[in-house]
Amino acid sequence: MSDEQLCIDYSRLESVYGPLAESIRRLIDVSIRTEADPTTVAAVRDKIDRATAELEVSARPGPLGVQRTPDGRTVALGNAVIGVRNPVAPPLVVNNDPDGSVWSEFVLGAPYEGPAQHVHGGVSALILDHVLGAAASRARTPTYTGTLTLRYRRRTALGRRLRAEAHVERIEGVKTFAVGHLADDEGITVEAEGVFIQPRQVNSA
Amino acid sequence: MSDEQLCIDYSRLESVYGPLAESIRRLIDVSIRTEADPTTVAAVRDKIDRATAELEVSARPGPLGVQRTPDGRTVALGNAVIGVRNPVAPPLVVNNDPDGSVWSEFVLGAPYEGPAQHVHGGVSALILDHVLGAAASRARTPTYTGTLTLRYRRRTALGRRLRAEAHVERIEGVKTFAVGHLADDEGITVEAEGVFIQPRQVNSA
Repeated sequence: MSDEQLCIDYSRLESVYGPLAESIRRLIDVSIRTEADPTTVAAVRDKIDRATAELEVSARPGPLGVQRTPDGRTVALGNAVIGVRNPVAPPLVVNNDPDGSVWSEFVLGAPYEGPAQHVHGGVSALILDHVLGAAASRARTPTYTGTLTLRYRRRTALGRRLRAEAHVERIEGVKTFAVGHLADDEGITVEAEGVFIQPRQVNSA
Repeated sequence: MSDEQLCIDYSRLESVYGPLAESIRRLIDVSIRTEADPTTVAAVRDKIDRATAELEVSARPGPLGVQRTPDGRTVALGNAVIGVRNPVAPPLVVNNDPDGSVWSEFVLGAPYEGPAQHVHGGVSALILDHVLGAAASRARTPTYTGTLTLRYRRRTALGRRLRAEAHVERIEGVKTFAVGHLADDEGITVEAEGVFIQPRQVNSA
């Protein structure tokens, strides 16, 4: 398969399976909020189980994994935060600014609830881990998370426009220090610091 | 509505909507792994969209929220980590040991992927935030997360039996200090420390 074909295939994967994930995201959201009676729920479950069976005929055994395109882009269609094929992912679109920082704007609904009507503190951690990691990866790759520290200033509401952003503060030896935060229209709700480590074999190469 | 009826209703909610969430979890997992052709995917999307429409007729507008039963138990059916009605939640069952510690055993599949074949570091953070919070809440309630620090020792594999556990180390003023970790059969993969804060109005009451 040529490089060009590989690129075309990824774009095809997104166009076929992306809308499927979107449909399932809507189903997830409504399934949490519905007050449908048991008979309706049983009929709906039957539809869903038949849909699952149809997709399962041609399902690969394990997780989707991460691929690299010929131009060096990472493709993580199944990723828990950005995966367009993963209905559990919001999914975030992470944007790169010319100054090296990264940011993403999004709204979180019912599936991400912790305290009533608010984003689960761990979901904020999930998103900030990813966004800080994305900033660290722009500075140096590959890296993996060494430590992550989160400071919760106040609760983050569901259903509102949120913004996560991060940038690299400094690099010392194998360590890349990234900082960032989650914010709503009124300011920062959660602050984060992460230390990302470059694997030894890459560093000494 | 009497207290007894309230309890019965919650158990009924679980029995009606819990299996619906289970069906959707299977759909999510298979939808990430399927290699079905575009025609099959389109037909499946149609089934899913019709299922969503049936559930939407009687859907409440906002997130599910958190309720308390008459015996003081918290019921969070829509919670992103433990919610039995939330298809995004694994869901974890958090067990209380007599010594005050809490633990949960579970397996994470394709929807929780970060690095290829491994648990997203942020998903580990999500789970540890919840489990440490559960330990802190046993010692004193209500509390909210103040800070959370995660140390990633090594990657955590998908598809393996995992265990998360936590306990309260000490209480100082309004602060409850909890520690815990995520582990597989070979030992700890992620360590966590959390400081949980008791709201001022409760503390001075």
